[in-house]
Amino acid sequence: MNEMQAQETRTIVGLSERARVMQASPLRKLAALAEQRKKTGIKVFHLNIGQPDLPTAPAVFEAMRGFDQKTLAYAPSNGLPVAINAWKNYLGHHGIHFEESELIVTAGGSEALIFAMCAVADAGEEVVVFEPFYTNYNGFATIANVRLVPVPLSIENGFHLPPEDIIERAITSRTRAILFCNPSNPTGTIYGRDEVERLVRLALKHNLYIISDEVYREFAYDADAISIMGFPEVADRAILCDSSSKRFNVCGARIGVLASHHKGVVETALKFGMARLSVATVEQVAIAPLLNDPEPYVRPIVEEFRHRRDVVVEGLRTIPGVTSYKPEGAFYIVIGLPVKDAEHFARWLINDFELNGETVLLAPAAGFYATPGQGANEARLAFMLKASELKRSIDIVHAALGSYAKGHH
Amino acid sequence: MNEMQAQETRTIVGLSERARVMQASPLRKLAALAEQRKKTGIKVFHLNIGQPDLPTAPAVFEAMRGFDQKTLAYAPSNGLPVAINAWKNYLGHHGIHFEESELIVTAGGSEALIFAMCAVADAGEEVVVFEPFYTNYNGFATIANVRLVPVPLSIENGFHLPPEDIIERAITSRTRAILFCNPSNPTGTIYGRDEVERLVRLALKHNLYIISDEVYREFAYDADAISIMGFPEVADRAILCDSSSKRFNVCGARIGVLASHHKGVVETALKFGMARLSVATVEQVAIAPLLNDPEPYVRPIVEEFRHRRDVVVEGLRTIPGVTSYKPEGAFYIVIGLPVKDAEHFARWLINDFELNGETVLLAPAAGFYATPGQGANEARLAFMLKASELKRSIDIVHAALGSYAKGHH
Repeated sequence: MNEMQAQETRTIVGLSERARVMQASPLRKLAALAEQRKKTGIKVFHLNIGQPDLPTAPAVFEAMRGFDQKTLAYAPSNGLPVAINAWKNYLGHHGIHFEESELIVTAGGSEALIFAMCAVADAGEEVVVFEPFYTNYNGFATIANVRLVPVPLSIENGFHLPPEDIIERAITSRTRAILFCNPSNPTGTIYGRDEVERLVRLALKHNLYIISDEVYREFAYDADAISIMGFPEVADRAILCDSSSKRFNVCGARIGVLASHHKGVVETALKFGMARLSVATVEQVAIAPLLNDPEPYVRPIVEEFRHRRDVVVEGLRTIPGVTSYKPEGAFYIVIGLPVKDAEHFARWLINDFELNGETVLLAPAAGFYATPGQGANEARLAFMLKASELKRSIDIVHAALGSYAKGHH
Repeated sequence: MNEMQAQETRTIVGLSERARVMQASPLRKLAALAEQRKKTGIKVFHLNIGQPDLPTAPAVFEAMRGFDQKTLAYAPSNGLPVAINAWKNYLGHHGIHFEESELIVTAGGSEALIFAMCAVADAGEEVVVFEPFYTNYNGFATIANVRLVPVPLSIENGFHLPPEDIIERAITSRTRAILFCNPSNPTGTIYGRDEVERLVRLALKHNLYIISDEVYREFAYDADAISIMGFPEVADRAILCDSSSKRFNVCGARIGVLASHHKGVVETALKFGMARLSVATVEQVAIAPLLNDPEPYVRPIVEEFRHRRDVVVEGLRTIPGVTSYKPEGAFYIVIGLPVKDAEHFARWLINDFELNGETVLLAPAAGFYATPGQGANEARLAFMLKASELKRSIDIVHAALGSYAKGHH
């Protein structure tokens, strides 16, 4: 083959369809604009991301430093015994009881969710989700070739679940599971017992799995968040996906867990786990002390976030035209802005606005919706700044909205 | 819904089809038998696995101990700058030149291979492989919903590639890529320039990607292994998957890389990477010093494995009826045994045989084939023991074959 033929052929080697539909993080472009703005000397408050700002428990680094194996060998595919036992203890501490054989240590909650989807659904099958939802669910579904079918929630009731018959409309003959996040990213909503019961009844009626993402478990400010494992009637169709990332400020450790009383699901997750061999060894060792004794570290963290939540909610109430509510958990809120296009506003805010040399990066909420056009005037705020900085950020948004409304853009 | 109805429904919540076809590690059952045998006081030599037995470079643990961030935060989805730069340096050291923007740090070579498959192929599409192949390719393909189409290799020519027209027969209108491992796990074969050129020509002719698994690069005892990146005519359809695991004895770190000059592939891998957020932060930092200066650690390791290879090859030649060859690389060999069913023999060996209180665990090679019935009399040996132990292991296999042939089983 000559050079020219090769050249010709070469240009038409296309990617897969899933490569095309795979969503890039919708927040990425705005983040790049923020970096540019910082170079002009403007301080940017990042309300856009869930990267933790609080220090990791020193016990994690101590455990790392104490790692004394000569060879950094593969861990077993289901996890190191010390890590499995620690997850069992951690969950037990929250009244969620599993045998060690029912737990698979995963690379963050992300891998647990991918394994769960692959275990229960085949290419083209459907998983019901509630929008707005954690945007990476799209990515997991694309990797797994599974279709997410969104049930819309509304800011009007603080993004709580709609009645059972509304949810039921999203269920088809191809539906395999209901996936939900409680407490919820991005809304901070905690679904109460009566709400989760709707999902439980539907899962039983339509023979579905329930995949429950509970990584924000402790971030519950008004009442405890209920685990799906608190519903014994779905004990053998519920799959719990969890992660140490948020509650211990160890996002960079990538240690999660998949837990289920459904033997087939666990065996399948283990088979997927065997294919990727193991999860990072040292991190499994390092996280164990915190899982075994979570309270001393987690309690003050949660109090800090409760305070931040209160400051944000209080501040938002003072901004005319902003729709908000009091998120019961996690460390996010999705707010309605008095603008037509929150993405345009966020872009203007980061590119052109400043108040005393400071501005704010917001996450437009459209990226958290699967339905085109939904959430166009909404934005997600993450509480990853000190309360004083959150307060300043809200003041900046307040001033910016005034300026934006006057057409200064 | 009453309890009984729930019970009835519950029992029929099935798994996905891919959960059913997902292969469990075929070596697992035999490993369990080995553990039982050890409890009877018999020493078992593990020739079955690729778990490294040599010490990790102390620099890795030093870098871990020196990690001084207060918060164990997410790394960027494409990798920490220090790790990306280190991979660039490492590959450059081997004459493989990439821009940092063309590299994505992955959770081991495993994730690089999953990302590569998902980037180029959709559900039901095909990837050509050469059997016997690394058994986890099956797992990655199942997760990715991609079909592996095997081209059989033969022990008669040391598992080298067949002529171009034979390989071409495996290519259909649904083929998207050729995947190969060079040096090869499980055969230890290194494909020479003329062999790789066959793949290059076929990829150009049929408009295919080439996915090249080069995790054993340095384990080349007679001549250097050629990277796919040494063929500029496929520079923009080649995807290099690599891992630090084997060459640095850091299997438990799970740090690999995907590298390609094809922008779309890298962008897609990054999008998959964004979905799982990041790879373990501390390990990325810990591996960087070795990637930046690999030779001092790798050179003696390779010499040790060359010695082991020579001892194994020498020993195998003394066993009547065993078919073998001289593997040019990696640290494996697939041998033909004078038995009908290598799995039966391996099971008997681990359950019932002993020589001076010692026995051997082999990996039956059938698990490395996709075609049913292929490799039935073959086994893979890994060189993860000291040369003296490898020699003893070969003697045990020798004695066992004699005993087995006499019908003592």
